[in-house]
Amino acid sequence: MAFQLNQTLKNDSIFIMELKLCQVRLINNANFPWLILIPQIFNLVEITDLSNAEYDLLNAEIKLIARVLQNALNPDKLNIATIGNVVSQLHFHIIARYKNDHLFPKPVWGCEFTPYSLKARKEKIHLFKTAINLML
Amino acid sequence: MAFQLNQTLKNDSIFIMELKLCQVRLINNANFPWLILIPQIFNLVEITDLSNAEYDLLNAEIKLIARVLQNALNPDKLNIATIGNVVSQLHFHIIARYKNDHLFPKPVWGCEFTPYSLKARKEKIHLFKTAINLML
Repeated sequence: MAFQLNQTLKNDSIFIMELKLCQVRLINNANFPWLILIPQIFNLVEITDLSNAEYDLLNAEIKLIARVLQNALNPDKLNIATIGNVVSQLHFHIIARYKNDHLFPKPVWGCEFTPYSLKARKEKIHLFKTAINLML
Repeated sequence: MAFQLNQTLKNDSIFIMELKLCQVRLINNANFPWLILIPQIFNLVEITDLSNAEYDLLNAEIKLIARVLQNALNPDKLNIATIGNVVSQLHFHIIARYKNDHLFPKPVWGCEFTPYSLKARKEKIHLFKTAINLML
């Protein structure tokens, strides 16, 4: 069966690009530089459901996105997680945190979203696409 | 310089065993089956600071612990994360979640701890040690 992106993930985020395994999306919350990686595999929930090759690829793509956030934004801390209690489709959060962001040191999950303006959205897509392509 | 376990992580958790790269510890909160993996490397904060070999080993140990929790406890969902906003020493949380645990679907970070009794503590150490050794 073909991969299908969960509707909530789709609504909450903006498409950036596809990597070998994952779709990279930007969570539509202007308060945090917050990317998600979704392996484009049908009916996937846990990392233990991945083949070894898929798991290696996922981890390589997580590290790539972590480096992109570090290089482009110089955060104080990265937060990386797969939770999936609400949306079980496997997705990894990779978030750039700053000691002066309004939730630090609390995690961001469950917070209210402030959507990007159309202009900021275009800028962010361009920023992340460029930064990712530089690292590929 | 030699690896030294952060004092807060030490206070909040119970030693289970050492793997090739990481120390496995049980968070001392009887409300959730909650393990942490700490790579035994000096001054480590982000996954991007690991060599490729260390990163591969870390990911293999994360998957191992994920499988241990699944095999031993059959959770509804695994939560896997590295946050580090409070304690920056790199550590991964691997938590077995149930739809009827008292926080689901919320994440557990920042919740109050209910320490294990001495008896439960011994049982859990034995359970996890046995389950991990079976998978090695």
